[in-house]
Amino acid sequence: MKEGLKTVYLFGNKTAEGRADMRNLLGGKGANLAEMSLIGLPVPPGFTITTEVCTAYNRLGADAVISAIRPEVEKGMAAVEEIMGAKFGDSVNPLLFSVRSGARASMPGMMDTILNLGINDTVVDALCKKTGNDRFAWDSYRRFVQMYGDVVLGMKPTSKEDIDPFEEIIEKMKEEKGVKLDTELGVDDLKELVVRFKAAVKKNTGKDFPTDPWEQLWGAIIAVFDSWMNERAILYRRLNNIPAEWGTAVNVQAMVFGNMGKTSATGVCFSRSASTGENKFNGEYLINAQGEDVVAGIRTPQEITLLGSQRWAQLQGISEKERAAKYPSLEESMPELYKELWELQNKLELHYKDMQDMEFTIQEGRLWMLQTRNGKRTGAAMVRIAMELCKEGLITEKEALMRIEPNKLDELLHPVFDKKALATAQVMAKGLPASPGAATGKILFFAEDAEKAIEKEPDAKLILVRIETSPEDLKGMYIAQGILTARGGMTSHAAVVARGMGKCCVSGAGDIEIDYKKRTLTMSGKTYKEGDFISLNGSTGQVFDGEIKTNDAEISGDFQALMDLADKYTRMRVRTNADTPHDAEVARNFGASGIGLCRTEHMFFEGDKIIPMREMILAKDADGRRAALAKLLPVQRADFEGIFTAMCDLPVTVRLLDPPLHEFVPKDRKGQEEMARVMGISVEEVAAKVKELEEVNPMLGHRGCRLGNTYPEISEMQTRAILEAALNLKAKGIKAHPEIMVPLAGSKKELQMQVDIIRETAEKVFAERKDRIEYLVGTMVEVPRAALTADEIAEVAEFFSFGTNDLTQMTFGFSRDDIGKFLPTYLEKNLLKYDPFQVLDREGVGQLMRIGVEKGRATRPDIKIGICGEHGGEPSSVAFCDSLGMRYVSCSPYRVPIARVAAAQANVSTQDK
Amino acid sequence: MKEGLKTVYLFGNKTAEGRADMRNLLGGKGANLAEMSLIGLPVPPGFTITTEVCTAYNRLGADAVISAIRPEVEKGMAAVEEIMGAKFGDSVNPLLFSVRSGARASMPGMMDTILNLGINDTVVDALCKKTGNDRFAWDSYRRFVQMYGDVVLGMKPTSKEDIDPFEEIIEKMKEEKGVKLDTELGVDDLKELVVRFKAAVKKNTGKDFPTDPWEQLWGAIIAVFDSWMNERAILYRRLNNIPAEWGTAVNVQAMVFGNMGKTSATGVCFSRSASTGENKFNGEYLINAQGEDVVAGIRTPQEITLLGSQRWAQLQGISEKERAAKYPSLEESMPELYKELWELQNKLELHYKDMQDMEFTIQEGRLWMLQTRNGKRTGAAMVRIAMELCKEGLITEKEALMRIEPNKLDELLHPVFDKKALATAQVMAKGLPASPGAATGKILFFAEDAEKAIEKEPDAKLILVRIETSPEDLKGMYIAQGILTARGGMTSHAAVVARGMGKCCVSGAGDIEIDYKKRTLTMSGKTYKEGDFISLNGSTGQVFDGEIKTNDAEISGDFQALMDLADKYTRMRVRTNADTPHDAEVARNFGASGIGLCRTEHMFFEGDKIIPMREMILAKDADGRRAALAKLLPVQRADFEGIFTAMCDLPVTVRLLDPPLHEFVPKDRKGQEEMARVMGISVEEVAAKVKELEEVNPMLGHRGCRLGNTYPEISEMQTRAILEAALNLKAKGIKAHPEIMVPLAGSKKELQMQVDIIRETAEKVFAERKDRIEYLVGTMVEVPRAALTADEIAEVAEFFSFGTNDLTQMTFGFSRDDIGKFLPTYLEKNLLKYDPFQVLDREGVGQLMRIGVEKGRATRPDIKIGICGEHGGEPSSVAFCDSLGMRYVSCSPYRVPIARVAAAQANVSTQDK
Repeated sequence: MKEGLKTVYLFGNKTAEGRADMRNLLGGKGANLAEMSLIGLPVPPGFTITTEVCTAYNRLGADAVISAIRPEVEKGMAAVEEIMGAKFGDSVNPLLFSVRSGARASMPGMMDTILNLGINDTVVDALCKKTGNDRFAWDSYRRFVQMYGDVVLGMKPTSKEDIDPFEEIIEKMKEEKGVKLDTELGVDDLKELVVRFKAAVKKNTGKDFPTDPWEQLWGAIIAVFDSWMNERAILYRRLNNIPAEWGTAVNVQAMVFGNMGKTSATGVCFSRSASTGENKFNGEYLINAQGEDVVAGIRTPQEITLLGSQRWAQLQGISEKERAAKYPSLEESMPELYKELWELQNKLELHYKDMQDMEFTIQEGRLWMLQTRNGKRTGAAMVRIAMELCKEGLITEKEALMRIEPNKLDELLHPVFDKKALATAQVMAKGLPASPGAATGKILFFAEDAEKAIEKEPDAKLILVRIETSPEDLKGMYIAQGILTARGGMTSHAAVVARGMGKCCVSGAGDIEIDYKKRTLTMSGKTYKEGDFISLNGSTGQVFDGEIKTNDAEISGDFQALMDLADKYTRMRVRTNADTPHDAEVARNFGASGIGLCRTEHMFFEGDKIIPMREMILAKDADGRRAALAKLLPVQRADFEGIFTAMCDLPVTVRLLDPPLHEFVPKDRKGQEEMARVMGISVEEVAAKVKELEEVNPMLGHRGCRLGNTYPEISEMQTRAILEAALNLKAKGIKAHPEIMVPLAGSKKELQMQVDIIRETAEKVFAERKDRIEYLVGTMVEVPRAALTADEIAEVAEFFSFGTNDLTQMTFGFSRDDIGKFLPTYLEKNLLKYDPFQVLDREGVGQLMRIGVEKGRATRPDIKIGICGEHGGEPSSVAFCDSLGMRYVSCSPYRVPIARVAAAQANVSTQDK
Repeated sequence: MKEGLKTVYLFGNKTAEGRADMRNLLGGKGANLAEMSLIGLPVPPGFTITTEVCTAYNRLGADAVISAIRPEVEKGMAAVEEIMGAKFGDSVNPLLFSVRSGARASMPGMMDTILNLGINDTVVDALCKKTGNDRFAWDSYRRFVQMYGDVVLGMKPTSKEDIDPFEEIIEKMKEEKGVKLDTELGVDDLKELVVRFKAAVKKNTGKDFPTDPWEQLWGAIIAVFDSWMNERAILYRRLNNIPAEWGTAVNVQAMVFGNMGKTSATGVCFSRSASTGENKFNGEYLINAQGEDVVAGIRTPQEITLLGSQRWAQLQGISEKERAAKYPSLEESMPELYKELWELQNKLELHYKDMQDMEFTIQEGRLWMLQTRNGKRTGAAMVRIAMELCKEGLITEKEALMRIEPNKLDELLHPVFDKKALATAQVMAKGLPASPGAATGKILFFAEDAEKAIEKEPDAKLILVRIETSPEDLKGMYIAQGILTARGGMTSHAAVVARGMGKCCVSGAGDIEIDYKKRTLTMSGKTYKEGDFISLNGSTGQVFDGEIKTNDAEISGDFQALMDLADKYTRMRVRTNADTPHDAEVARNFGASGIGLCRTEHMFFEGDKIIPMREMILAKDADGRRAALAKLLPVQRADFEGIFTAMCDLPVTVRLLDPPLHEFVPKDRKGQEEMARVMGISVEEVAAKVKELEEVNPMLGHRGCRLGNTYPEISEMQTRAILEAALNLKAKGIKAHPEIMVPLAGSKKELQMQVDIIRETAEKVFAERKDRIEYLVGTMVEVPRAALTADEIAEVAEFFSFGTNDLTQMTFGFSRDDIGKFLPTYLEKNLLKYDPFQVLDREGVGQLMRIGVEKGRATRPDIKIGICGEHGGEPSSVAFCDSLGMRYVSCSPYRVPIARVAAAQANVSTQDK
């Protein structure tokens, strides 16, 4: 090690040698402890041994390192002793220490910690005398021996099957004493445990347990360094790309105890409400207790503030008198210390400019702050706190915007379970959190029964339970409160459609059993009949037994203010994927600036519209198809009029027919019989057609513009419906801005043929109507080849919309309907960091997008480029789209506010770079 | 037009003003006529009006252009008259002309031609007198009026539904005369036709038919220029990227007639045999006939050479006496002219240095050469001619190599139908030419019956007829002579496997009907039972009625010489895709320099090997899978020993398990019952597993390394089998060079996990055996993402093999199993130039390959890169691989010679650039 290198940094007594920005040298924990101390917090004093020492240790070994840093460590120790007025290893007034790791990046639980260091037979007696609490003293002792034995002396079992030798001894002791809980062991038992523990150490290591506190300390420091190189830490680093050269720092800090009697206490507090965001200091504490007691819930913690305490009592139905007597607030029980705490929390919030979540301990009338961090909060609290901090002038508008975790806004947009009701609810199964919100209702297995159920009981709440859903289930899904499927991932049909509808959905709950014949659902051994109640949490994927009360989420007034802020700072626009006037209105209310994807096929499943569609499919030639399409024309035109009206003055991108035709015909015998009856043909004929339409890989089959190029009359009819609708509205003074989008083009020629059909049809319509409107013609970029040849495609496309769902499927070669068979393994083994259908894969799919954008712009510099895959509502993907300079993202209506914030954040981040 | 610009180029009288390399100015035909004349051929004289005149015409119109070129045209006309000793429009010795278009690029049939120009009422009389053949003269006249009316006077119908007015008149005349054929009309009838034709012209155009030859000429010239801008020509240019600015030249040439009596004749001849390549002048002729008579087959043409004539007579069973009397050769009937012709053909071959296909006409004892071109030839002739020309010193080795059309070599490698037998065969259906060769045999509908059929009748020839094939049919396909399927494209299972086996296959014969229940096949209205004979031509896609004799194709000694030449000049190596020792041996005999793709899964379908495979699939956990895999291990090891032995000393790339597991279980009830019986479990259990394995898009599902990463024990077993086999052989002195290939990796991490498994397993095996061998680990690049991230993937891959089948599927988003629904339309409408599964798409898929190669080399400069998709045997794709600097291509055994030549040609082309 370099001569004269500073290796130990002191903190405590409202000062410190380190700072928050010395993370690389002191590790995260060390830097934070220094910062807290520096700004005047009463932090238990201690010192940090730098990460450079760890690196040196790995190179030079223990002896060299210890002799190099010993003088500084001894100096640090002396300083701590002075602050604490106690002495390490002292036989009268002893001081105990914790020794903790702390790397540059957080590696939770990966490395080792030793508490209560500095205890031995002499010290334990002194502790007994000093605290008058023998149990506390001996329990601390036996815990130390156990922890030290495990961590420093290497007695911790290496495999999960083996039992910790100390736990074995405790178990045996409890058996002997006939007790069940550790806490039932008496002081003598604890003393006996220490003896037996030490014997085990001797037997195991051949050496006596070290009684010299300094020997204990050096052992612990070296053990922490060693833990940097333990197997799980190495694995963790490999998985998280953390270089081994970084090393860990070691924090040696004085122990403080909240369980040293009635003048001691411990607690957790928040500078504002983590649940509502209200600007009120709040928290809980326990007198004569350790931190873990507050968390463990053995004793009921008390409120810190008087106001909080009174609110609590009211909810519990406890009289003010009883409250004041039995559950006084800290404000009442220790008013001086409360005042000090209030000031500290205020100082911390002003320093960190965010709501703080703090841990404190009061040891014999003295307040110590153990930790502070930005507090976790609900979506509502997040919005309120950010906007109020901004109003208070603590943070700027941009900072307020950047404080928002866009995904958490989702909570503000969907119903939630009533908290109390949820507390007693029983989880029966778990699936994927496919579409957020809470839903409760009666089980229904067949979508087509939904209408009947609603006729019978108009207020009926229904949960549609299916193995998987298909387009035929759309109406039933719409009526139901929520959808539960046994198969399918986050981007299965059920999930995508439900998110579009803003409807709760749990998909791919693999452990549930559905018997369509018996109409039963079995989960966790319990069998439910049709009509039985279940509840779904689409935000967590949980499936609950029975009915659970739901509440509409509160949207605070700050929400609108946040949205205005987002619009002020954004560059990209946010459009929506919407197929109905209703969806369009929802999205418009959420601030969508147009429709980025209107799927025309969904319209065909409503009511009787499927009949002419099926007639077209069954037609033997182009004339037959034209006759059927003539019936569809007025229907589609009316649909477009509805959507254009809802989106008046805003652009609407309409995608021409995309799915393979077999999606429009029934696969099951019953459905085929029904279809045969309606169409007036034999069921064999229907079955033969269905068979003929079957595909091995429908995803890569006869769909998209391949349909429009083999059956040009379909594109003709759709173009006509779009433009006639726009002209009809123009006559009424409603402005429509249609953008006609060709799906699945993979080459310029493929697109050219569609563009020719569209332009020719348009001219015909305009000539017939003696009027015209402006419209654009563009294409989806969703086939890898389209991105690769975007320069040529841009010669005929006025806009590009990246269909990242399909582009992801083809770039990875992953069928999203089948990914469930290997995705869980891939995520678990870290072969994939995220589900690429949720978070855009920048490296592969993103590379193709970049190629597509660059080539497209090379040909047509002002080409309008957007994205309309599911990723359009995922914040990190939105940021990537911003980095490509896209004009807009398009997402499902309920994701619009999220995307607006994400888009604004992306722009602010770029500007501030 | 520019003053003094030369606009007319003369040719004829063994000289010319143009040359072969003046194609841009004179068009293809004009340049060729000039070249033939220049080298001394007796070409009917004429002149070419340049393409520049056409361009000027489009700008300036007819009057300006005519007045500008008139002096040169008149000069040209005078020159021709002098050479021919006759005069344009003369009333005693008239000269007729043809007026033809001729663009820079060949546009067959797109533009117009006028023959016999210069005829009128006076000239026709002169012709009658001069030739003594009134019929000839009047027929020429009426043809001219019709052609001129159609083309120049605009009377040709514009739609297919309308009837040519002249044809209408002829039909009416034939009705009046009660005859059926045009040739049955007499001279007076022809005269009457001319009258009626002229009346129709008058009625239609309001003008008299032009009698002035010069007026006729200018009209014809302008009409040819106009035809450059006709609709079909514009469309053709658009489809073939020919700029409109090029324009067409106009060739005005003296007409010569072979039908002017006994001293006139016409014929076609070849400088060598087009069928065998033998270096013998040969051809056919007819005395007193026109060119079309030779082609039409109304009269039997006679052989040109005495040798040819005698050979012909022998085959026909005609005595020498009869032959000499009735069918004398040109050598006998016109010995002087024959000698002249012989010298001309010899001169032409020496000039063009290739076998020439020539047309000639003898008009009244004078020989005229009308055309010469490099002759079309069979594969055998192609090889023999190229190699002999080389031996004769006429062309270099490289030139000989470049003369080979690699795909035509295929003819040398498969059986062919006996020509005579084929002549009377009836075509019943047509499918895709999926795998070349000829096959004849008895219909068989179920592959599993093949073995029984062979047991009963060991010499039985079978044709397997299926709607489509699956891996379960492998054995049956192997036994059968040929395969016929109703569904599937050029890369369907049947097609790919058949090509691999070198077995004849016709796939996707959409019009045949197969009834498995009744065991019948219906084609063109005829129903065949199992056991009935049919025949297939896998090179054309034809399906024939009944049995047709087949012959093994002759492989001339030049074939080997050609292969040696290919190897001498190649840079890339050619490997083979082979899964069995037999395939490996076939390929090795064809000169494969290793195996580029050994699919391990095909082995599992042989005999009982499927049983442990199915046990593995049914296993409930990793232990169960391991137990089943332990049974597969010796089986796979033995397979690899066989293949390594066959490929001794050459590298063998073994691909780990790739297909989804559902390919290994039966989909039908009968098969499931059988499987349940063999496995000793309930059929419900089997059915449930099959259902569980089902996938929506199996192409993009749980397959490739996704299997090996979810079930690592599979990769362990396969690695062990490969390396144990190699070690076993090493002990016997046989050198194996295994290259273990991971399929379908899309990211470095995915590949890394497989590489770790392989390397760890290898070290275990080597430790157990106390011996080791060299081996490589690499990956397929077949997912777009793999190409895009090839830099990272190359960190762990020692070689790349581009799997262009899957890469094409994913880059286009085309499922090759489903492409049949739209590919025909796409090819027909020119949305695709080729089936991308046959000819590599350089623009899209090729771009990804280029990215993959460049990124791969950036990380690992010496990385071994090859291709193992179907494209590895397609010449233009092989050339592309060479341009990427690949190390090898791999193709099915029967394509190896083709790929070897293609690879050598690609290298020669690059070097000579």
